[in-house]
Amino acid sequence: MGEPTYRYFRVTTPREYVAHVEINRPEKANAFIEPMWHELKVVFDRLSDDPSVRAIVFSGAGDKSFSAGLDLQNASAEGSKFNPRPEDKLDAGRQAFKTRKWALEFQHCVSSIERCEKPVICVMHGMCIGLTVDIVTCTDLRICTTDSVFSVKEVDVAITSDVGTLARLPKVVGSYAWVKDVCLTGRNFDAEEALRVGFVTQVLPTKAEAVQKALETADSIAAKSPLAVQGTKNCLDWCRDHDVASGLRYMAVWNGGAINTQDVPLAMKSILTKGGNPRFEKL
Amino acid sequence: MGEPTYRYFRVTTPREYVAHVEINRPEKANAFIEPMWHELKVVFDRLSDDPSVRAIVFSGAGDKSFSAGLDLQNASAEGSKFNPRPEDKLDAGRQAFKTRKWALEFQHCVSSIERCEKPVICVMHGMCIGLTVDIVTCTDLRICTTDSVFSVKEVDVAITSDVGTLARLPKVVGSYAWVKDVCLTGRNFDAEEALRVGFVTQVLPTKAEAVQKALETADSIAAKSPLAVQGTKNCLDWCRDHDVASGLRYMAVWNGGAINTQDVPLAMKSILTKGGNPRFEKL
Amino acid sequence: MGEPTYRYFRVTTPREYVAHVEINRPEKANAFIEPMWHELKVVFDRLSDDPSVRAIVFSGAGDKSFSAGLDLQNASAEGSKFNPRPEDKLDAGRQAFKTRKWALEFQHCVSSIERCEKPVICVMHGMCIGLTVDIVTCTDLRICTTDSVFSVKEVDVAITSDVGTLARLPKVVGSYAWVKDVCLTGRNFDAEEALRVGFVTQVLPTKAEAVQKALETADSIAAKSPLAVQGTKNCLDWCRDHDVASGLRYMAVWNGGAINTQDVPLAMKSILTKGGNPRFEKL
Amino acid sequence: MGEPTYRYFRVTTPREYVAHVEINRPEKANAFIEPMWHELKVVFDRLSDDPSVRAIVFSGAGDKSFSAGLDLQNASAEGSKFNPRPEDKLDAGRQAFKTRKWALEFQHCVSSIERCEKPVICVMHGMCIGLTVDIVTCTDLRICTTDSVFSVKEVDVAITSDVGTLARLPKVVGSYAWVKDVCLTGRNFDAEEALRVGFVTQVLPTKAEAVQKALETADSIAAKSPLAVQGTKNCLDWCRDHDVASGLRYMAVWNGGAINTQDVPLAMKSILTKGGNPRFEKL
Amino acid sequence: MGEPTYRYFRVTTPREYVAHVEINRPEKANAFIEPMWHELKVVFDRLSDDPSVRAIVFSGAGDKSFSAGLDLQNASAEGSKFNPRPEDKLDAGRQAFKTRKWALEFQHCVSSIERCEKPVICVMHGMCIGLTVDIVTCTDLRICTTDSVFSVKEVDVAITSDVGTLARLPKVVGSYAWVKDVCLTGRNFDAEEALRVGFVTQVLPTKAEAVQKALETADSIAAKSPLAVQGTKNCLDWCRDHDVASGLRYMAVWNGGAINTQDVPLAMKSILTKGGNPRFEKL
Amino acid sequence: MGEPTYRYFRVTTPREYVAHVEINRPEKANAFIEPMWHELKVVFDRLSDDPSVRAIVFSGAGDKSFSAGLDLQNASAEGSKFNPRPEDKLDAGRQAFKTRKWALEFQHCVSSIERCEKPVICVMHGMCIGLTVDIVTCTDLRICTTDSVFSVKEVDVAITSDVGTLARLPKVVGSYAWVKDVCLTGRNFDAEEALRVGFVTQVLPTKAEAVQKALETADSIAAKSPLAVQGTKNCLDWCRDHDVASGLRYMAVWNGGAINTQDVPLAMKSILTKGGNPRFEKL
Repeated sequence: MGEPTYRYFRVTTPREYVAHVEINRPEKANAFIEPMWHELKVVFDRLSDDPSVRAIVFSGAGDKSFSAGLDLQNASAEGSKFNPRPEDKLDAGRQAFKTRKWALEFQHCVSSIERCEKPVICVMHGMCIGLTVDIVTCTDLRICTTDSVFSVKEVDVAITSDVGTLARLPKVVGSYAWVKDVCLTGRNFDAEEALRVGFVTQVLPTKAEAVQKALETADSIAAKSPLAVQGTKNCLDWCRDHDVASGLRYMAVWNGGAINTQDVPLAMKSILTKGGNPRFEKL
Repeated sequence: MGEPTYRYFRVTTPREYVAHVEINRPEKANAFIEPMWHELKVVFDRLSDDPSVRAIVFSGAGDKSFSAGLDLQNASAEGSKFNPRPEDKLDAGRQAFKTRKWALEFQHCVSSIERCEKPVICVMHGMCIGLTVDIVTCTDLRICTTDSVFSVKEVDVAITSDVGTLARLPKVVGSYAWVKDVCLTGRNFDAEEALRVGFVTQVLPTKAEAVQKALETADSIAAKSPLAVQGTKNCLDWCRDHDVASGLRYMAVWNGGAINTQDVPLAMKSILTKGGNPRFEKL
Repeated sequence: MGEPTYRYFRVTTPREYVAHVEINRPEKANAFIEPMWHELKVVFDRLSDDPSVRAIVFSGAGDKSFSAGLDLQNASAEGSKFNPRPEDKLDAGRQAFKTRKWALEFQHCVSSIERCEKPVICVMHGMCIGLTVDIVTCTDLRICTTDSVFSVKEVDVAITSDVGTLARLPKVVGSYAWVKDVCLTGRNFDAEEALRVGFVTQVLPTKAEAVQKALETADSIAAKSPLAVQGTKNCLDWCRDHDVASGLRYMAVWNGGAINTQDVPLAMKSILTKGGNPRFEKL
Repeated sequence: MGEPTYRYFRVTTPREYVAHVEINRPEKANAFIEPMWHELKVVFDRLSDDPSVRAIVFSGAGDKSFSAGLDLQNASAEGSKFNPRPEDKLDAGRQAFKTRKWALEFQHCVSSIERCEKPVICVMHGMCIGLTVDIVTCTDLRICTTDSVFSVKEVDVAITSDVGTLARLPKVVGSYAWVKDVCLTGRNFDAEEALRVGFVTQVLPTKAEAVQKALETADSIAAKSPLAVQGTKNCLDWCRDHDVASGLRYMAVWNGGAINTQDVPLAMKSILTKGGNPRFEKL
Repeated sequence: MGEPTYRYFRVTTPREYVAHVEINRPEKANAFIEPMWHELKVVFDRLSDDPSVRAIVFSGAGDKSFSAGLDLQNASAEGSKFNPRPEDKLDAGRQAFKTRKWALEFQHCVSSIERCEKPVICVMHGMCIGLTVDIVTCTDLRICTTDSVFSVKEVDVAITSDVGTLARLPKVVGSYAWVKDVCLTGRNFDAEEALRVGFVTQVLPTKAEAVQKALETADSIAAKSPLAVQGTKNCLDWCRDHDVASGLRYMAVWNGGAINTQDVPLAMKSILTKGGNPRFEKL
Repeated sequence: MGEPTYRYFRVTTPREYVAHVEINRPEKANAFIEPMWHELKVVFDRLSDDPSVRAIVFSGAGDKSFSAGLDLQNASAEGSKFNPRPEDKLDAGRQAFKTRKWALEFQHCVSSIERCEKPVICVMHGMCIGLTVDIVTCTDLRICTTDSVFSVKEVDVAITSDVGTLARLPKVVGSYAWVKDVCLTGRNFDAEEALRVGFVTQVLPTKAEAVQKALETADSIAAKSPLAVQGTKNCLDWCRDHDVASGLRYMAVWNGGAINTQDVPLAMKSILTKGGNPRFEKL
């Protein structure tokens, strides 16, 4: 409720424990310019720490698009990072060093969604292009509208995508050949294909319905023990990146602490007595 | 064939080289209590070592369910692991240490199915809930009946699942968003969805037909060279947990020994002469 | 185009920047004998280094098959690697050492397709059996004809497949249960199943159409910045084998160098002005 | 020169390109309280980004000690993190979650020294106890005075050290048995032993001489190409955490960019003509 | 104290919380035959679980030797694992499979020392040959007598050592060249060299003095918080096998539970009041 | 004896099963130019495969130096890789791509020493500078003369060393602080320091004595079972790069094949009867 105001994002709390983050630059198809990814990090870092938030819905403002990705007009202006003036050009070695640091910082902003301790449910509609795919692969659940169009566009801008798509997509969907196909051709794929390959888990006719669905899911997650929900997100992300043995050992240590909570007998009793969701304390 | 008798499992050998393990507590929907996972380990350790067994079918006794998972009635009783009496409560640090050791032992029992050198074909029907999913993700092949209902239920019991689901599921099906969906919402999914995401490879109308199908598959596997079958299981599990280069090097060493067997020329000759399956010696 | 002539492969350049490699032993269903995998490596090493090649189509000559895999007639002849004469048999320890070295070399030849810096688009038709699957899992994109039949046949020849299938397949398709199914049973699967599990990304009615489709895809890829295309392949393969954090750091370093190219402003400008594909310089 | 002023640290630039950071709470033996590790991060993040800094000397103010580690008086006060009031105690599961987040943040502050792109040369004298060892294992070079006394003290405060010592010490010195000895017994070790096991690389009689030596080393490093110096730190830290093959591939990509600098022919020419250190541009 | 009696080991509890395990086959220089490594596992599994044991001293009975390693007389007898009768020889592929399983079981027995949750302090004297080195690299602290003679002897018995030395030695001492030297030449090294390279941490004149020293160290460790001691062992072993980032994350989770114990304020208070070691409760 | 003749290396076989490789450009202090690392690979690939070679001594021709490293005169000539003519300069992105490929190839040549299946004993004298350290960290055993002078010189040539030193040195000696010291300062270190930190295992007064010592060690290794010697090298290198659990599993598979050799009972019998080294068959 006392959410701060942001320039490029609108953050509301439509329901108890549920935050809604909207990319809010609809006049530019929610395309991204540099201050936006810095603000994105501020938004998600804050929600990660706020005990009154247990689940987050993430969508794009306006009817047109979730996001058109990098704002090319802005990125290609003379004097920008991607098109430096001749007189600003550094020694190639120094330029490489500086570009790397800039890319690491860019990644760090985008990855704030993955580092956020609360589940993030992404609702996509319209264009979801280029940088957008980097961003949404950091979310936990993805649903979209029938009219969604996706593309891993970076290759068409002569860029090896480096803020997340190539690192996460091979671990996010089932077909590595499909990953290579969309990343090497930069071709569009639609909602139906996204569903078939497992990139999204649901397709809904309209944005309103998709947001409604996401809010319901968020609601249902927010009603569960926050210890179990956030533990599940944390452990799944750990296990994606470690072998099974290291996954099992980490989780045994996790539950050494986490399982010793009153939420467990409370939840068990509620199930056995069909008493409905108990009210779990804040975390 | 001289199989020992177990309290909670029925182990038979319906065909040469094929063992059939049934969870045998149908009066409680095959729900698990602690002695059961210890016995599970005894069963699979023994089958892993028995040279007269080459493939294993794993199902649940009774018409109702493969297994309802953890027996909540038992688990939530006062004085149990999940609901200790106030006077039994330890210092939180000591409790965490003890819980971790208990979880590691629990995992070690469940993982006996993965460690078993022989392929395990799982036949699921009815409810396959919570702990059941942890267990079946350790099997090699999974088929189910039309009426099967699955859920990664732990989150609803306020638990971060730690005996296998979170460690293995991201490596077992294609869509990481789907994994997060079912693990974070605890929602049911049915046979058709399980098939679509690749959690099971086949759906059959009835339990009888599913068991029949599993036995046929087991039979066909058991007729092959046990060296090749068990090598294939071993190497696939290694490769899941290592990068491609480490996978290739391990397998070159494996075949340094394994390929130098009479089974190879025997099998080649049989194929070239269309002579049917040769009889391979025990391993 | 000055391509050298090979014994078992035909290499042509049907379009600018696009090479077409055909397995060329149709009289034996393109089955492989030892000199062929050595030549395969020569072919792909050369294409990897040739700046006038930017994308590669890989198919099998003749109407019958992409490839029947290992030439069993040849492999099972007395005195062969798989069927040594009694008098040639070494001490089992020495034999294991020698077999391992031979397998590593075999793997090194097959993996030349993966090491090739250019995307390889594989067109399969007819039989794609055994060793063929090891080989095609090294390619980047896979399409096939309706009549294709696949099988991971090694288990039926009493062999634990070790030149790539077991190392790569668990990382290439979504369902680990499906991987175990086809590897442990050696059963056939058809084009439709291959498409459903994500092993191939497209199925076309005839070989001519499939090759045509592959050439078009190759063409479209070859028209893009070769820096971006080859960077995307390189980074995707790195990320498959490393955790997300190591993937992100590697790619930030990659783009430290790669992004500082005139291709980027050139491509951006072309997109903004809808100017069509710009002509990118050789790499 | 225009360095900001800090509360617990003194930051000066005694020579061109060399910063000197002093822990500045000598009245408490430079012992750490929570605001100090947050400020530590601010200091090193800033130096990491400042192009006018190329090497950093890190020491403790006062004659008595580098640092006595965690300020136990403060840490054990009732109501502190380590000794909460009974009425503040949370559910053990919630407490574990909160403690973990706090520990991750604590680690993130301490690790800022490792993340700093510039080499950090640590000068230790007097007591270097407990948390101090966690901190100094993040530095690049370590030298100390004859009177230094070290100990991995956490075990004596009933704590499993978790902000760096246990993670880094096994990778920092040669003898794993020695690591376990000092970590399990919490015993003191002196400068001579620290030198023998490789924990420090040099021992000097007095703090003044040690700081002098460190400044000279910093000076000599600061005179070299900053691209080569910071690349060397970055790549060594990467290689410590990856296998040799992944280390080699990362470094080839690194030098793809980094080596293409005028610093290289400049340095070569200078060596061949014995022209002394050339002046390298800022990075 | 109620310890069971073993055939090849003597287990006593010379002091409160301290167990002493002696290899007890002095008439054969404590050389190992197969039943001994199975019993070794029984001994250490039991001590790992016994809350009245907090530190373990491990030595060899008799004046002559810690252990001569594998009992070659026994191992080379006709019909043994290493020298099968011609008529018992299996197909080389089957033999390789069986040998691997046997080696894994052998390793599992030896590694019980590493898996033991309590620190193990090893006291070596006289001959410490071959298999002995595999075993002692699993212990946490190693001290020896002046007359100790070590060798990684397997290479002289034509064996690639596989029960631990080659896996652990490169992570246990500082010089990889030294590791290769002693493993490839099988040469003897003495106490002084063992100390210099960091294989042992202390050398004492006689066995009596060395055992006395080990008991004192065990005593001092046993007087500390068992939560902190066993946490330190556990985390150090984890960190040896993982990168720094994974080490830090694991330890933050560990302390989520472990640090919330009364031992911490108790220990802090005791240090601040110089009150000597407090009495910590059992774990 | 039938060794081929090389341009920059002299290869002899001073004793049965022992090859001696000398860097043979003494008039230039054995400094390296590009054709030399290509030839180095040819030399070691050939020795790796030659069954009549079981151990290799590697030294530098002439009295002056093992090697002065990269030939700076040659490397800095206008038009060279390190100092391209302005008109040859590529787009920075393209240049980075090309440099990376060149570095990978350079590494592949140098790493041929590590890939060589036979142990390589390195004898260093005089200057061992820059690239030399990259090369010698690939050898298995290192000894040197009293007059040896080492330095990781790359940083002084403005280069982040990338052909092996930074990847291997942190895993080769005990003190990571020492590694950073010599890599960041580029300072010289002498034989005595190299011995103390474990970079070399022995120091001898003269080159003649050092070569003599190396030949004796090579001789002693060559007299052992080649299966055990080469298995030991292979497994140690594997274990350096994998965790302990993966090391143990790999070695169990290794010995599945390797231990089933007549060399084992032969060696055991010889030891028990003190019969001296048996004659082992070629591998």
